[in-house]
Order: sequence, then structure tokens, then C-alpha cells
Amino acid sequence: MRISELSRSSGVPVPTIKYYLREGLLPSGERTGRNQAAYGGEHLRRLKLVRALVDVGGLSIAAVGDVIDVLEASDVVTHQVLGVVQRSMGSDDPPEADRAAQDEVRDFLARRGWETMADDPAARSLAGVVATARKLGHHRFAAQLDAYAEASVGIARQDLDYVLLHSEVDDVLESMVIATVLGDAALVALRKLAQRDASARLLGEE
Amino acid sequence: MRISELSRSSGVPVPTIKYYLREGLLPSGERTGRNQAAYGGEHLRRLKLVRALVDVGGLSIAAVGDVIDVLEASDVVTHQVLGVVQRSMGSDDPPEADRAAQDEVRDFLARRGWETMADDPAARSLAGVVATARKLGHHRFAAQLDAYAEASVGIARQDLDYVLLHSEVDDVLESMVIATVLGDAALVALRKLAQRDASARLLGEE
Repeated sequence: MRISELSRSSGVPVPTIKYYLREGLLPSGERTGRNQAAYGGEHLRRLKLVRALVDVGGLSIAAVGDVIDVLEASDVVTHQVLGVVQRSMGSDDPPEADRAAQDEVRDFLARRGWETMADDPAARSLAGVVATARKLGHHRFAAQLDAYAEASVGIARQDLDYVLLHSEVDDVLESMVIATVLGDAALVALRKLAQRDASARLLGEE
Repeated sequence: MRISELSRSSGVPVPTIKYYLREGLLPSGERTGRNQAAYGGEHLRRLKLVRALVDVGGLSIAAVGDVIDVLEASDVVTHQVLGVVQRSMGSDDPPEADRAAQDEVRDFLARRGWETMADDPAARSLAGVVATARKLGHHRFAAQLDAYAEASVGIARQDLDYVLLHSEVDDVLESMVIATVLGDAALVALRKLAQRDASARLLGEE
């Protein structure tokens, strides 16, 4: 199909598609003339993935590029894709954590058997959260982490089960991206709804 | 204390404090001279809360203003504070959902007994996620929502328990803000760590 049809099928404007082509987020079409190229189902699928990462995941174009690069690498393993997707969704600049908060998170991870992850950016973010709670005088907030971790383990198992439903390598990698990005957005929304329900019941106000 | 001491105690630069004062995020100090004012513990506490909302929650200054306004209103009830905090953290522009995705989310909420929330912005976000998954050919993604909702109910109960640990009205409202904003950041980090752990175990790659 031509670029105009690709635009109609995907709902993405032609100038945006051209921008994605220049940025390497979309592979070039097959040249069919001096100023024309033909695009196929592969392009449409990729275009939808890019839009999902931008619209739902809130990723920057540079971060989408990192995800696409790792999806296209021939020697990549699934676990690596997860790392790249996670980093591309992370905030670049977690609040700084003091030594006490870092130690607390390190102990917490060790208790869960996740001690190898103490240098993970997500562990740094967590230490930033604990440090912030402390500064606010909410020392007891750290005790919430165990319950949050319990819930997260169930969610992560569910995520991986979803990924492993897919047997083709390309599908496994893409579903990893989708489970991570869409899953985050779905969880944030569901937590809000569950909080409102719990609040209405417990506090008796609507 | 003077503004310079408030700056030292909080780690927030004086020009930033002055900006917050102008924007009404911080109440004025007690005038002690033509160009001087005295600030107390209340100001320090508020300043830390503002920084937490900005640094950890990623709220805009306008959104922080909305949260502060509802915290300061004399006739506010806890359930309302939750609504304002949730909206201030929400993305302004969830991806559009088609009719089928909206219906699916409506049915899902009804099954959970949350049907009154179908017009909630969080429900709209959820419909956007379902619509995006469908467009990507991931029709089975919607089946994940039940497990996510189960986990969210546990988390929300934990959040409310934390809030109800506090007995003073001011503390209840502040802890609602903190549980929501810090809790979201903690959960996002913990889900990443749990995913990496599950992936390393199940996929056997490190």
C-alpha cells in the first residue's frame, strides 16, 4: 500500500509517518518509483506499536527508538527486551535517597531474595520514595512496601504468563513490550478505581 | 525562622520558595519587618509536601495548587481529597476508546460492583488501554484486567488502612495524598523489580 493508505489504515497523519521513517522507528518501504514506496502489514503493525508506546506509555521518540532497536536486534533475549522497555519508561531523575533509605531498600530486597537488583534504577527510585516519606515524617510508609511487593509478584507472574502465551519469537518480544506498557497504564487506572471504591465503603462518603 | 533558614532546612532554594509563595502553594509568613517574614514548622512541612508532589508524583505546579486548595478547604471530606489527588496525577489525555472497548470496561466494572464509576476519568483511561491492545491485535490482553483488579483491591485496602492509622483530620488528608502519590511511585518500581525476578526465573536468562 502507499503511504496515504498506511495513514488511513493506522489513523496516523502522513507527516508523522514520514517523521517516524526519518527517525528509523519504521523500516523503509519497498521503492516503487522515484518518489514512491510500498508499505505492507509489517509497517502497519509497527506503526500501531509506536503509537501505543507514545500515547499509552508516554515514551519519548528517543525511548521508542531504543525499544525498536532492541526488538530488531537478531541476538536479543527476552530478558534483555524487558530491561530496555523498563528503562525507557522510567523517570530519568528519581529523587535522591540518603544512605539510610538506600540501606532500608537493600535490606528489603535481600529479604525478598531480590538482592542482586540493588543497583537497578527501579531500586534507586524505590529508595527515593522511602527517603521522601521519611522527610515528610511518614516513617511508617516503608511498612507498606511488603504488601505492595506481594501484589507486584502476582502481577508480574500474570505478565509473564501472558508473554509466554505467544510462541513466535517476534510475538514474545512484542507482547513483553505490550504487557509492560499497557499493564502499567491499566494498573494505575485500576488502583484509582479500587481506592475510590475502598474509600467510599470505609469512609462512607460519596 | 527566616526564609534563608527555611531554605536550609528544606533544601529548597530561596527563589523557588518565593515562587511557591507567589503561587499560593505556601501560606505567607508572619510579617516581622518591611521586607522580612518569619516562617514556622507548618511552612517547612508544607514545603516538603510540595516537593514530594513535584519530585515523586511528577505533578505540575497547577496540579499541586489544586491539591493544596482541597487540603486547605475547611469543609472538605476525605473522599473528595482522594478524587482531587487522583485527577491531579492523571494523564490529561488518555487515548480514545471506541465503543466496543468502552462497553467492555463498563461490563468489567459492573462485574466488580464498581458500575457507578463508568464515567470516572480512570475508567476512560482503562478503556483507552483496552482499545489500544485490540488495535495491536492483543485481544486477550483484556483478560489480564481481572488479575490486575484483584491486586489493586489488596493495594487499595492497604492504602486506606495506612490513611486510617492517622487520627487528626489534617494528618488523614495529608496521608491520603502521600499514600496515593508515593504509593504509585513505589508500585511502579516494585512491579519492575518483580517482573525482572519472574523473567530471570521463568526465562532463565540474566
